[in-house]
Amino acid sequence: MIEWVVVLVNPKYAGNVGSVARSMMNFGFSKLTLINPPSMDSSECRKYASHASAILDSARIVESFEEAIEDVDFLVGTSARIYEGEKVNWRTPAGIRDFTKKVFGMKGRVGIVFGPEDFGLSNKDLSKCDLLISIPTSEQYPSMNLSHAVHLVLWEIFYESGDASFKELPKMSGQEKEKFFELLSSILEQAGYPKHKREITKIMMRRIMGRALVSEMEYHRLMGTLQTIKKRLD
Amino acid sequence: MIEWVVVLVNPKYAGNVGSVARSMMNFGFSKLTLINPPSMDSSECRKYASHASAILDSARIVESFEEAIEDVDFLVGTSARIYEGEKVNWRTPAGIRDFTKKVFGMKGRVGIVFGPEDFGLSNKDLSKCDLLISIPTSEQYPSMNLSHAVHLVLWEIFYESGDASFKELPKMSGQEKEKFFELLSSILEQAGYPKHKREITKIMMRRIMGRALVSEMEYHRLMGTLQTIKKRLD
Repeated sequence: MIEWVVVLVNPKYAGNVGSVARSMMNFGFSKLTLINPPSMDSSECRKYASHASAILDSARIVESFEEAIEDVDFLVGTSARIYEGEKVNWRTPAGIRDFTKKVFGMKGRVGIVFGPEDFGLSNKDLSKCDLLISIPTSEQYPSMNLSHAVHLVLWEIFYESGDASFKELPKMSGQEKEKFFELLSSILEQAGYPKHKREITKIMMRRIMGRALVSEMEYHRLMGTLQTIKKRLD
Repeated sequence: MIEWVVVLVNPKYAGNVGSVARSMMNFGFSKLTLINPPSMDSSECRKYASHASAILDSARIVESFEEAIEDVDFLVGTSARIYEGEKVNWRTPAGIRDFTKKVFGMKGRVGIVFGPEDFGLSNKDLSKCDLLISIPTSEQYPSMNLSHAVHLVLWEIFYESGDASFKELPKMSGQEKEKFFELLSSILEQAGYPKHKREITKIMMRRIMGRALVSEMEYHRLMGTLQTIKKRLD
């Protein structure tokens, strides 16, 4: 079981800190450590946090990187994607999805560290990270808004954790499917749709329904529609 | 080939519109349509857009949903995840990754529509969409900042488009790997490391190096380190 900590190093804008709190709550994170943050009492900060003010109120506030990471078992640094054939080899980043696919085998506290808006993490801070991750972007403009970067990383972790799986609506059953095609057939026949085209049309419909993964509720509505048509034809 | 259009319906905050422009540039999108946006001349809007002001300047500004979508071939609506067993069956959303995995077979203009900050897309607007997508979140707090929602959707499209593949640094070759283990062996031997432990240690090292996918640059640095030790032992 991993305990996640989001660490912001010297964030400049209170709006970003608030936004980060909201993203954390969107994806079920709660532990936030802030190194020298701006005041979080401003209305801007609280506006961006929206319903996630509690995360701001319980944030751990420290004055140095060392202090921030002292209770962390594994430290993940984030950086903008590097395009220019990076020469400093300890800056080689892992892809974000390679990271999230591996990390759930770990235990303990994992800190995800984000640098300030203008310069990102310093080389000194990066050298203390166990792993670097980077978010691919267009080469044209790799620099991302801080809260956007946090949002993406938390989303990817959340998604890979399996909490993102949709509670799927029940799908149309095989029996229901056959009833649907039976009814459709009889309507096509009654309507005088050319016999030699019927089979191929049914197959096409089957494919369309298959791709659309029709739900049970949708099935009932479709059947209602067809039954109305049938009644008229009768 | 898909031409993407990002459509914001009645966005309230200029900062969000600016942020959306920046996200678009981060992921290589350029066409923005705005329905009744706030003024984009404010310093807040431009601050959040950062280097993406050109996207704001070339945005198409319209006054109605109908006007916004008249040149779009396929319309994708976005909504917050619905947890309460949705009764209105046309609101059944697809998962975002199911969507991005399928969409690249399409041609023409695809519009992705985002509703206003406070209420999201209206039922009337949603009914005009060909497909609905939703971003899974924690049940605790599904409502996302508008620009965060846009950022995620564009990221997922960008990632699936294949542009996100890292230009991987060249990895250590098989030959280099063997040289490394040879050198390591001879050092262990010279250092008096117990013979019966050597083999298992080498295998462990091989596994570690394997998991880490060591790059060529890292290989050279590792070799340099080992050679220094070897020299000392000699």
